[in-house]
Amino acid sequence: MNTTRDQRFQAEAQALGYSFDGEIRPGGHYVPLVRDGTTIYVAGQVPRVGDELVFKGSAGAERSLAEAQKAAQVCVMRILALLQRALGSLDEVKSIARMHVYVQSAAGFNQQTEVADGASGLIARVLGPEGAHARTSVGVFQLPKGATVEIDLIAIARH
Amino acid sequence: MNTTRDQRFQAEAQALGYSFDGEIRPGGHYVPLVRDGTTIYVAGQVPRVGDELVFKGSAGAERSLAEAQKAAQVCVMRILALLQRALGSLDEVKSIARMHVYVQSAAGFNQQTEVADGASGLIARVLGPEGAHARTSVGVFQLPKGATVEIDLIAIARH
Amino acid sequence: MNTTRDQRFQAEAQALGYSFDGEIRPGGHYVPLVRDGTTIYVAGQVPRVGDELVFKGSAGAERSLAEAQKAAQVCVMRILALLQRALGSLDEVKSIARMHVYVQSAAGFNQQTEVADGASGLIARVLGPEGAHARTSVGVFQLPKGATVEIDLIAIARH
Repeated sequence: MNTTRDQRFQAEAQALGYSFDGEIRPGGHYVPLVRDGTTIYVAGQVPRVGDELVFKGSAGAERSLAEAQKAAQVCVMRILALLQRALGSLDEVKSIARMHVYVQSAAGFNQQTEVADGASGLIARVLGPEGAHARTSVGVFQLPKGATVEIDLIAIARH
Repeated sequence: MNTTRDQRFQAEAQALGYSFDGEIRPGGHYVPLVRDGTTIYVAGQVPRVGDELVFKGSAGAERSLAEAQKAAQVCVMRILALLQRALGSLDEVKSIARMHVYVQSAAGFNQQTEVADGASGLIARVLGPEGAHARTSVGVFQLPKGATVEIDLIAIARH
Repeated sequence: MNTTRDQRFQAEAQALGYSFDGEIRPGGHYVPLVRDGTTIYVAGQVPRVGDELVFKGSAGAERSLAEAQKAAQVCVMRILALLQRALGSLDEVKSIARMHVYVQSAAGFNQQTEVADGASGLIARVLGPEGAHARTSVGVFQLPKGATVEIDLIAIARH
């Protein structure tokens, strides 16, 4: 790839049609990420852009698979934006260790893997092969504010 | 703060009206915490005091938001009690890396962030600014024994 | 124990009646495990043997407690198979830090601890006392492809 990770991040933001330039605020009494050595624990992110939760409702009922995948991508863009700010550049991400994907699921909806693939694909496009990660996807009953998806992860910094 | 963390832990126990002096037993075939270097993985805790599960039922149906917040605080007190015993004192906790908060949620209940704030606020009161953590809160369908909340976390020890 | 861990792994596979000799493929766009130093993050595993998901349906409705426990054991056998391949032998596992057990649960089913004990017991039989781990068990609404159980864990390698 001839582009940098930070350029590809911007390209993904444009493709999604959202800006991730503003402050990424957590919704409660906690911090968006904690660093211990080179291990970075990123807080669970819902598909919020600015102050607006852009995907609410359960996958398989109010939300289609395609919408849930896009919701997962917005969650991951927030995580990448947080890592970019904490590290200065996404080039400083050495690897993504584990991602947890929580999908608000209607009865009988069991395409959580496919929803999570939306997030994993975006990470691969931005970070390249180093973005390959272990992943767990589950279908939960409710999420904060009615969010369609929530994602957290553990990233490893180069230095 | 002129008090020690261990003193503030006792003050929180008194405010909740529960004692966390007894043995903190896990409910199954596992151990309450595992240490790897300075990283401490604490097992999921439900709001049990001694042998009694003090908060059962789902938030938004059998349990109010205020009760679910108190349930979350009991879970965190158990975690702090486990860390205190393992490390000798809560002063030996360097940071809290990540907390997962699972709230047994009724249909339409989406105040998982507010429930988790009950736990995060208690950690801040006891540990001070070093207790700031990354957090993920989700609404699950069922929890062991009907518990209202279950919380686990990763703590970092000073030494 | 006079047998090796790898021998006990084979004995458990025979007792379950499944072979874990084939490739263990993840179901989506991610990798089965990521290693960072001696910390190994294993992706969430469902009870799949080869290409077949051998336990579908929710515990407490389509699946009994005994079946859900066996499903949990199949998940853990997949994890052990992955660790065995990555490390050459299960003797290279120093410890299991944390296990997350997600049980697809029917309304009113709250024996998630007992389901997870099926998995923890198998780990104890294969790895011995070093396999003792912190654990979190929750009851989720849906799982990928309708799986009865999904399990992930963090293992620590000796070297």
